[in-house]
Amino acid sequence: MADPTLQQPAGTADIMPGTPDFDAYPVTETIAAAKTDGDVVTVSWSDGLESRYHAQWLRENAADPETINPLTRESTYDLVAAPDGLRAASVNVDAAGALAVRFEPEGHETAFHPGWLRAHDYSNGPAAAIDPVAPQVWTAADNAEPPSFDGAAVLTDDAVLEDWLTALARFGLARLRNVPAEPGMVAKVAGRIGTLRDSNFGIVFDVRARPDPDSNAYTSLALAPHTDLPTREYQPGLQFLHCMENTTAGGAAVYVDGFAVADHIRKTDADAFAALTTIDWTFTNRARDTDYRWRSPSVVLSPDGSYREVRIGGFLRGPLAIPFDDVPRAYRALKLYSRLAGDPAFQQVFTYRPGDLVGFDNRRILHGREAFDAGGGARWLQGCYGEREELQSRLRVLARNRRLQ
Amino acid sequence: MADPTLQQPAGTADIMPGTPDFDAYPVTETIAAAKTDGDVVTVSWSDGLESRYHAQWLRENAADPETINPLTRESTYDLVAAPDGLRAASVNVDAAGALAVRFEPEGHETAFHPGWLRAHDYSNGPAAAIDPVAPQVWTAADNAEPPSFDGAAVLTDDAVLEDWLTALARFGLARLRNVPAEPGMVAKVAGRIGTLRDSNFGIVFDVRARPDPDSNAYTSLALAPHTDLPTREYQPGLQFLHCMENTTAGGAAVYVDGFAVADHIRKTDADAFAALTTIDWTFTNRARDTDYRWRSPSVVLSPDGSYREVRIGGFLRGPLAIPFDDVPRAYRALKLYSRLAGDPAFQQVFTYRPGDLVGFDNRRILHGREAFDAGGGARWLQGCYGEREELQSRLRVLARNRRLQ
Repeated sequence: MADPTLQQPAGTADIMPGTPDFDAYPVTETIAAAKTDGDVVTVSWSDGLESRYHAQWLRENAADPETINPLTRESTYDLVAAPDGLRAASVNVDAAGALAVRFEPEGHETAFHPGWLRAHDYSNGPAAAIDPVAPQVWTAADNAEPPSFDGAAVLTDDAVLEDWLTALARFGLARLRNVPAEPGMVAKVAGRIGTLRDSNFGIVFDVRARPDPDSNAYTSLALAPHTDLPTREYQPGLQFLHCMENTTAGGAAVYVDGFAVADHIRKTDADAFAALTTIDWTFTNRARDTDYRWRSPSVVLSPDGSYREVRIGGFLRGPLAIPFDDVPRAYRALKLYSRLAGDPAFQQVFTYRPGDLVGFDNRRILHGREAFDAGGGARWLQGCYGEREELQSRLRVLARNRRLQ
Repeated sequence: MADPTLQQPAGTADIMPGTPDFDAYPVTETIAAAKTDGDVVTVSWSDGLESRYHAQWLRENAADPETINPLTRESTYDLVAAPDGLRAASVNVDAAGALAVRFEPEGHETAFHPGWLRAHDYSNGPAAAIDPVAPQVWTAADNAEPPSFDGAAVLTDDAVLEDWLTALARFGLARLRNVPAEPGMVAKVAGRIGTLRDSNFGIVFDVRARPDPDSNAYTSLALAPHTDLPTREYQPGLQFLHCMENTTAGGAAVYVDGFAVADHIRKTDADAFAALTTIDWTFTNRARDTDYRWRSPSVVLSPDGSYREVRIGGFLRGPLAIPFDDVPRAYRALKLYSRLAGDPAFQQVFTYRPGDLVGFDNRRILHGREAFDAGGGARWLQGCYGEREELQSRLRVLARNRRLQ
């Protein structure tokens, strides 16, 4: 029977025998029996499940110091040097309840932690998604206002941070209220997640009407719902906008779930959906010292058909460069998408208050604004960019820290 | 006949009538005649070519102040507001040689610069690639040493910068020699291209053996050829390594064109190539404060079958999580790829000299090193990351500046 002390003890983050990383793997089921045919090891669990593991897979994932550098936790295993006839020559459940394996012809022996082994079973159906939070598409009918959290607490309280980030990952946007309206604060809050992304606009950019703007964002013009930096191969995964001041007439914020718009078209107009997901638009910036260009469909799907990103940027759209006969359906589909993104049924519309800080997934959520009267007051946002992967990493670490407490 | 003054004059970067951006469009052919059927405008050029443009395409790409904000050069055109019956009601070649078009029902009139119009013809075959330099795959037989340039000049001389970057874009790596071996210089040189990419290792990272490493890179271990940060959705597009000091025994640099290895397998082993391009490996980092994970094939193709990136990182490979029956072919293919990447026939191997600075495409070129004797001297590199899109933007601007001179 497995020793429950194999579960990583509270407060420690050291490698337990048979686990390769900093996480905890509670032993919910124990190993009842194990056998090998050389190529494949079969483990029978206390709840009746059978899991199968290839010898090569086990050998590569051994958690011992000969396979994982104990300092860096990175692998030192050399797949090229692995003998071609590698096999799990013998297996047994050791006194601690771990799966002990002897590999031949190496003669290498190691033990696998049962909690880790069960968590990484790949023989019983598809692997779990690596996204810690599944996205949930929304329209104005079911999500009229951004989910909102306490901005004063987020710099110090991990529980508030986790709540805010969970909503951000799920809905693609979430708001903090009462973040101190101090310059640079947006980078400090976003830095709680991970590293920020620099761009030609700077790490922190000021969104306000300027006399010599290098972007329509820096005017008082209305901005149709869009994603930022569609001219880059990889649009920023996250954007943060923090309201410092807002005394103008107009300028309401508009947010749209770009996946919801795409999904509506998927269900109602197959030709438009095909055009949106396969026809490359060209995006170009027009600037004195940079010349970014990228081509991409408006809606990018993952291989499994789920939504990876939207790329909608009217003011950075360059000349379409596609086969002649595709041009009318490309415009028809984009016009349909843009019309729906402009429909209140898909929009959250609200006025920023000083101290509001909205974090959103810039590859999913379109943002825009209504025009404002630049002469009738001040409207000043500070913004910065980050990445989805920083959000996901932070959510995993916050959850891990809870498990280890 | 077209007025040659429509060509943008030397040294200026203002919008010429009919051009929307900061570039120059020499008039190599003039417009002999133009006609419209309402939906499509047909232009006959002085060399006999006929080009066709949809009315909607022309309307969206008008370069006048009602369509392009003259300050930001970004579009203010609202596709949603475009009338459904939009047509090019009449066309003619104006006195300056531009294509004048009247759109109905708007009643909007505008003129298109002939050089710009010819350059953006989409009706005569596929559009030109947006990459300014086509990649050229290499093996040790045809490219035994990195192409090398004068590192002392690169900070001030745009011609040297362009030569270095052109080689970097073509071969995936290029070396500067005699860059002053001063801390931070790597960021200064890379900053000549564009913005840098931050990561959990910092904007500038020091590669040397450390007592408490958080990566195998920071030990004296050999590193098999790999790409950096395969745990991120978007691996850094560029990496720069600058040698500050190198008095150790061993530690030779190894560089491999990951596209060449993939291409060899494509030609010799269809099953392995299919496995490399379709089976997702899992990459994980194992750290106290971050937990990045990503799944991707080892070789990622563009929709046209060309190579987009390779993702090879032995020491960050996590447990493979794919259908059980695919596991043996996944390992066989990766082992083949890794064996070839370790074969001198695909490798550049050289010893860094202080002042050497190698720039390389981290999504194409694998880099590694031989083990070194950490007790027998010092080996210190400074590194930083950038992006392919910054390289491409800089190459376009350098070429544009030459055209405008």
